[in-house]
Amino acid sequence: MLNISILSIGDELCIGQVVNTNASWLANQLSYIGCNIYTIVNIPDDLDFIKSEIARLSEISDFIILTGGLGPTLDDITKIALIQYFDDVLVQNQDLFSSLKVFFTKRGLPFTERNQQQALVPSKCKLLSNSIGTAPGMLFEYNRKYLVSLPGVPFEMKQISIEHLIPFIKQLILSRNDTVRLFKSYHTSGIAESLLADKLDINQEILDKYSIAFLPSPDGVKLRFGTSADNFDQAQNMLKKLENQLIPKIKDYLISAEGKGLMEVTANLLIVNNQTLSVAESCTGGLLGSLITAIPGSSKFFMGGIIAYDNEVKTNNLAVKIETLKQFGAVSRETAIEMAENARKLLNTDFAISITGIAGPDGGTDEKPVGTIWVGLSSHKETIAKKYMFGATRELNRTRAIYSALNLLYQKLK
Amino acid sequence: MLNISILSIGDELCIGQVVNTNASWLANQLSYIGCNIYTIVNIPDDLDFIKSEIARLSEISDFIILTGGLGPTLDDITKIALIQYFDDVLVQNQDLFSSLKVFFTKRGLPFTERNQQQALVPSKCKLLSNSIGTAPGMLFEYNRKYLVSLPGVPFEMKQISIEHLIPFIKQLILSRNDTVRLFKSYHTSGIAESLLADKLDINQEILDKYSIAFLPSPDGVKLRFGTSADNFDQAQNMLKKLENQLIPKIKDYLISAEGKGLMEVTANLLIVNNQTLSVAESCTGGLLGSLITAIPGSSKFFMGGIIAYDNEVKTNNLAVKIETLKQFGAVSRETAIEMAENARKLLNTDFAISITGIAGPDGGTDEKPVGTIWVGLSSHKETIAKKYMFGATRELNRTRAIYSALNLLYQKLK
Repeated sequence: MLNISILSIGDELCIGQVVNTNASWLANQLSYIGCNIYTIVNIPDDLDFIKSEIARLSEISDFIILTGGLGPTLDDITKIALIQYFDDVLVQNQDLFSSLKVFFTKRGLPFTERNQQQALVPSKCKLLSNSIGTAPGMLFEYNRKYLVSLPGVPFEMKQISIEHLIPFIKQLILSRNDTVRLFKSYHTSGIAESLLADKLDINQEILDKYSIAFLPSPDGVKLRFGTSADNFDQAQNMLKKLENQLIPKIKDYLISAEGKGLMEVTANLLIVNNQTLSVAESCTGGLLGSLITAIPGSSKFFMGGIIAYDNEVKTNNLAVKIETLKQFGAVSRETAIEMAENARKLLNTDFAISITGIAGPDGGTDEKPVGTIWVGLSSHKETIAKKYMFGATRELNRTRAIYSALNLLYQKLK
Repeated sequence: MLNISILSIGDELCIGQVVNTNASWLANQLSYIGCNIYTIVNIPDDLDFIKSEIARLSEISDFIILTGGLGPTLDDITKIALIQYFDDVLVQNQDLFSSLKVFFTKRGLPFTERNQQQALVPSKCKLLSNSIGTAPGMLFEYNRKYLVSLPGVPFEMKQISIEHLIPFIKQLILSRNDTVRLFKSYHTSGIAESLLADKLDINQEILDKYSIAFLPSPDGVKLRFGTSADNFDQAQNMLKKLENQLIPKIKDYLISAEGKGLMEVTANLLIVNNQTLSVAESCTGGLLGSLITAIPGSSKFFMGGIIAYDNEVKTNNLAVKIETLKQFGAVSRETAIEMAENARKLLNTDFAISITGIAGPDGGTDEKPVGTIWVGLSSHKETIAKKYMFGATRELNRTRAIYSALNLLYQKLK
């Protein structure tokens, strides 16, 4: 198995100013070609720390991927750490110098001394060209191990990885004829983690050969199977075998075996059925609409909606009866039903979802505590409403509300 | 200085299925109370690896924060690693058992044996209660060091941190009377990073004592001053001195020195003025409404809005003239003006914001490329509209659009 460590360098990572999406993107790409990501480490811009981490990770992995610290400013010290660690020197690369010159000239930018220094690279590395930026990747081979240094700018890191690094690692795995580890993910909806585990009823025989992981998320519990085998094909066959054995047990809750989430599968069903959707949102205030329209192509099925946050908007703009609000309150089956039905009619859609609830932290009562949410779903045939009792935080209540609403629609469409 | 290491546990992190937002959230929170985040490490669900990393990080830091692996399923092995590492045993905690029973009963879920096992906790730790989930935090004190284990579910991790961990660490820093590193952040709006740097005109004398960082974000450039000192008070005084020296130079662009963002200061102005707001959203599909209503208390000024994603909704439900759409298109000054004006009248508010644009990736033309966004702002006095040209990604275009719209309103209110 090719053991890979990822070492991400930058103060901004260690003070939480930037989330390390580079590492997870790399890990995801490399997991699916059979690598084992051994560990992911973030450290600050500190020369000694970088060198000692390279030394430590060299002991425990076959391949180290560095990201960050290759820019032109003073805090970019990865190159210095590398020449010190490999006892190397910086030399000017003529090809790189020429292409940098073209890069700056093309953009009408001055090719300053600071930028020219980008053409100074360690003599012992192989350059991986950067077609969209100025800092190339640098690949070192040492003691039968590899280290590659990539820029921290996500677009550039991805481009160099796709063009050079991933093909190189693929080839390396094939040439080593080594064991591989593969994963497959499944999305479920409408079932809790512990019940899902009970239904799967995984025995020790399975656990000897496979890793099984449960990942609860607002749009359902994700399930992940992993296995190691002598080669890629064998690992894939083993995953297929486990899928055939286990997935039928939970087929009622499975929404996707291709890594798609609840929003995506629901959207696809609406598009395939050529049906339209609108929303009427109170406590979520547009969150469901914004999630739907985050998907490119949502205009194929989503028409729009009414954000009826205040009761006056519910009555004046969504035609909810004043009587209904007086008698049952804004957070009630009756209001949820009217909101969904009226949105469907006013926006002339096949389906409409309504959400009304007490997101908190204030507004709760003994009868209707914070976390009480009613979700309505209206179609040409009928309008239904369902009550949910969530927790105490506003963010969580709103997030759970929109995924519960989507699940109601998904169950209807399925 | 309190050196903190964060150790995040989970196969899902190492195969890139999940981005480690927990670690960056924690690092961000802790940086602002004077901690030094030494390193952030992600490792898989591997018992020996967890133990050896705890041992390694104990050598190089004062406080280890573990996240993940505390759920009820087989892959959750953090608790086992902890009792092995601390030579401890699991004991049933009666209070926890009772509160878990209430937790499951309240939600109408079966309190299964698997769930009951969540009440088994190491005997040597102090529990940090989890008010919104089932796995409590666990705090160990050993050899004048600390280790805390938190659940990996972000909502629960944050809740426990806010309620227990962060106050505990704050107190610890005060009691140690150790050197601290502190930061202070300032939000600006309506000025570019390089212009902000020019106006501040920072000299070497300042750089010898302080770190200065610029962070461009969708709601404006954030500015961060940092410094180290012998104790908390001294560090705060030094930051205050720098504030007095530099902040007057950029006061026209400062929106908050208390960590408040554009949304919050705008909301406060509306509340103080006793004025109301509505929205009319096309390409953002509810994103602005959802951002506004994410704030507790937004019902004091926000009435609601129309998500007019499809043109039919613009004409039927928002009374935009068919003629306007035909002559100028949906992405135009004229449509933005009508959307804002009509929303204000239909929802009977003091102000209304409209957003209409081409978020991408499709729908762009030579005349109106992807990233073209019109924002409208209507008040009783007048309705204005402003055009923005953003970039190529849907997410970024939508995010920039809502903050540009908010900035327009903020400038009007100020």
